[in-house]
Amino acid sequence: MSTSRRTFMAAAATLGTTIAAATTAGAATAVNTYPKLVHHVFFWLKNPASKEDLSKLLAGLRTLTAIETVRGAHFGVPASTEKRDVVDNSYSASEILFFDDLAGQKIYQDHPVHKKFVADCSHLWERVVVYDAVSA
Amino acid sequence: MSTSRRTFMAAAATLGTTIAAATTAGAATAVNTYPKLVHHVFFWLKNPASKEDLSKLLAGLRTLTAIETVRGAHFGVPASTEKRDVVDNSYSASEILFFDDLAGQKIYQDHPVHKKFVADCSHLWERVVVYDAVSA
Repeated sequence: MSTSRRTFMAAAATLGTTIAAATTAGAATAVNTYPKLVHHVFFWLKNPASKEDLSKLLAGLRTLTAIETVRGAHFGVPASTEKRDVVDNSYSASEILFFDDLAGQKIYQDHPVHKKFVADCSHLWERVVVYDAVSA
Repeated sequence: MSTSRRTFMAAAATLGTTIAAATTAGAATAVNTYPKLVHHVFFWLKNPASKEDLSKLLAGLRTLTAIETVRGAHFGVPASTEKRDVVDNSYSASEILFFDDLAGQKIYQDHPVHKKFVADCSHLWERVVVYDAVSA
């Protein structure tokens, strides 16, 4: 295990996640190096060719990290990985937020910062799909 | 910012991710606290009621963390967050892997450990959807 990976896992541990240490050399190591609950939202813009609309949406998304229960964030756009039948790259923007638990996600959902984001940006998108997953 | 959050962000920085420091108190802070490329896969089991099949799939997924370019992992099942029209909780299992870049994801895709996972577990699922997102 590299030093950076070890440091990262140690930090993840401070966030209360579960770390399964390697028991044998070469075995699968960390199972969950991130907080327990992940909230992944995909947005399809009404005007997918508008760089301005994408920029506004991404700026709106970045405000969400101010919510105190957000433990980590990744905001992105479709990656230019290999095109395969199973890959959906039709969306405009991706929002991943990590929470410690359901309570943290609920606080986010009802938070004024989240409501302001929806009020300011919902005219930009035509479709949203949300996946919430808990560590298993 | 709490100590744990600061520690976490410092560790994320060692992984080469971009950290945008807060410029004003209370402003949105870290934009990308995770490696650049996220690979999120959702699996729908042929037998969604089978705990044994889910267990086999999750065990298979955990082997993927042995691939050297995997920078972080979260394996999960649908969370019991509030049911809303936009939430898709129909899947059986969720796999999130983080990579530094496209090259890292490509090494994973072609890696013998990944191929063994597909060979061992693909009979379990009837549908897979993949989303690859790059930080923006």
